[in-house]
Amino acid sequence: MSDSAAAPLVLTPGEPAGAGAEIALKAWATAHNRLPPFFLLEEPDRLTGLASRLGIDTPIIEISAPEAARDAFENGLPVLPISYAVPPEAGRLDPANSPAVIDAIERAVRMTAEGSASAVVTLPIQKSVLYEAGFRYPGHTEFLAALAGPDVTPVMMLAAPELRVVPVTIHIPLKRVPDVLTTEMIVAKARITAEALKRDFGCARPRLALAGLNPHAGEDGTIGTEDRDIVAPAVAALRAEGVDAVGPLSADTMFHAEARKSYDAAICMYHDQALIPIKTVNFWGGVNVTLGLPFIRTSPDHGTALELAGTGRAHADSLIAALVMAGEMAKARARA
Amino acid sequence: MSDSAAAPLVLTPGEPAGAGAEIALKAWATAHNRLPPFFLLEEPDRLTGLASRLGIDTPIIEISAPEAARDAFENGLPVLPISYAVPPEAGRLDPANSPAVIDAIERAVRMTAEGSASAVVTLPIQKSVLYEAGFRYPGHTEFLAALAGPDVTPVMMLAAPELRVVPVTIHIPLKRVPDVLTTEMIVAKARITAEALKRDFGCARPRLALAGLNPHAGEDGTIGTEDRDIVAPAVAALRAEGVDAVGPLSADTMFHAEARKSYDAAICMYHDQALIPIKTVNFWGGVNVTLGLPFIRTSPDHGTALELAGTGRAHADSLIAALVMAGEMAKARARA
Repeated sequence: MSDSAAAPLVLTPGEPAGAGAEIALKAWATAHNRLPPFFLLEEPDRLTGLASRLGIDTPIIEISAPEAARDAFENGLPVLPISYAVPPEAGRLDPANSPAVIDAIERAVRMTAEGSASAVVTLPIQKSVLYEAGFRYPGHTEFLAALAGPDVTPVMMLAAPELRVVPVTIHIPLKRVPDVLTTEMIVAKARITAEALKRDFGCARPRLALAGLNPHAGEDGTIGTEDRDIVAPAVAALRAEGVDAVGPLSADTMFHAEARKSYDAAICMYHDQALIPIKTVNFWGGVNVTLGLPFIRTSPDHGTALELAGTGRAHADSLIAALVMAGEMAKARARA
Repeated sequence: MSDSAAAPLVLTPGEPAGAGAEIALKAWATAHNRLPPFFLLEEPDRLTGLASRLGIDTPIIEISAPEAARDAFENGLPVLPISYAVPPEAGRLDPANSPAVIDAIERAVRMTAEGSASAVVTLPIQKSVLYEAGFRYPGHTEFLAALAGPDVTPVMMLAAPELRVVPVTIHIPLKRVPDVLTTEMIVAKARITAEALKRDFGCARPRLALAGLNPHAGEDGTIGTEDRDIVAPAVAALRAEGVDAVGPLSADTMFHAEARKSYDAAICMYHDQALIPIKTVNFWGGVNVTLGLPFIRTSPDHGTALELAGTGRAHADSLIAALVMAGEMAKARARA
């Protein structure tokens, strides 16, 4: 394990028609002296051309194995070559390139298993074009979970220096949230969160704050019954197994600076309850972390930015934050 | 109208067993040189005793009419006397004092109608003890609306220097929000908000941002249909009548500092969607403003703080913000 912590991070290319490659170039150019060593799976020539066209001062250093990345990193962006079927064009999706995108993700995961990479950082994919090429997963995260093994429950966390949030339900209509939410689901995701905080975030005794579903956490059942009947039993079950969990808390009063000091992660019942506070306090620096996988995986918290591809205007902040966080998680896991 | 703008603000006592009186004393002590002149409806002797016991340096100046408040304000807290049936005790609710609490609110509203007060600022009431005394309204706001007249729709806005939010639905279970929400309700509240922004907040051409109900504002109907079928038509109707409204917007990306510059108020579909962002960015300084009344009404955005009453530990920040905002609104209305 200590070998793999010393290993570099692997960055997957994501959608080659998007802004992924250029934010990788920008990340190295603006922040390489404070980033953990990483290498990118990409076509070196295309990156050299892109850097030159956009005026980004990032030398491309082609490497033949992950082991070469650490030494190369100081002088340029290490790139382990892959090949696209057709030359990627900014903003133009082409399913012919989907196999290369998918293959790069599979390779990255294998590298973490072999110990030649300490963590996977993924650039955003465009699901629609992958579906045209036969991709069968609801998303990036589910694909990674499938690559990890049969009994893996991936848990999405959004993390910034100010706040970590875990939405228990995610991309479903608000109307369905109260029906879909169960005590078991909350407990399962909170438990995986607590384990990850210990192993990967250096929290010896993780403190979880569970948000109530209803206004004022239901005010003892007078504003909705789910907080009393679903969330409160989850808090009790977690405490019974030794997890330091509190709640259900009134969601509106748990995210200001003073309140955030009292917990290491907030377990939220639905998408906007989790994403409104984190994107309000830190819009550009949020990182998407997948907990519950055998390997470390982070990704910038944005999409492929097809409309910005080729302009050099896409922000690299979230990718930089994702790389920094993956590096810190790898170190914490090596120590644990 | 210019006379009434020059008139002082009237501050109602709220629950006398709560922390209202002491935060009024603290507000004068810590901020009177930057506050608009106001007077409090209270028992002068009890305030003098409270200030002395808590070591708050606020002289009490008994006045016999609102007109005397402005001159007195520089030297102490002007108090227009009321009488309680029994001496209020910190933390002990007594329905015998409820008639005095209710009567003070009625007097304050009459003063705005007569022009002897330019705005009503209300300290928090304890509804439970008012109910024991025969109070028949769901809350403070509904009572004020009833005092204002038969066709008044009060609209709750939470306002801080960073952000103004209006929740379209408020204290109902999350489960009921999608069923209760209608295009008409959204349009009515947004329209009242736009009018108030013009008249009372100095926004010549108010810009409204309407939040979507579902994650990512429903992504064209793929994550819930309400944004397409209920919220989008409300935006269209508002625009058709000349209101500068945009939406439905993805709620998670509309509250960071940069995004907030693009609108004057956010119209939110439910309680936590509105209250999470404002309390996250400004926990202590949020003000509750009731729009749609013929008079100006603000209040601190917290409860009676029964458990803090008598300790001197309750924060006066939100009351100070409520007084400042009421003063600014009165000036804006006088100019309009």
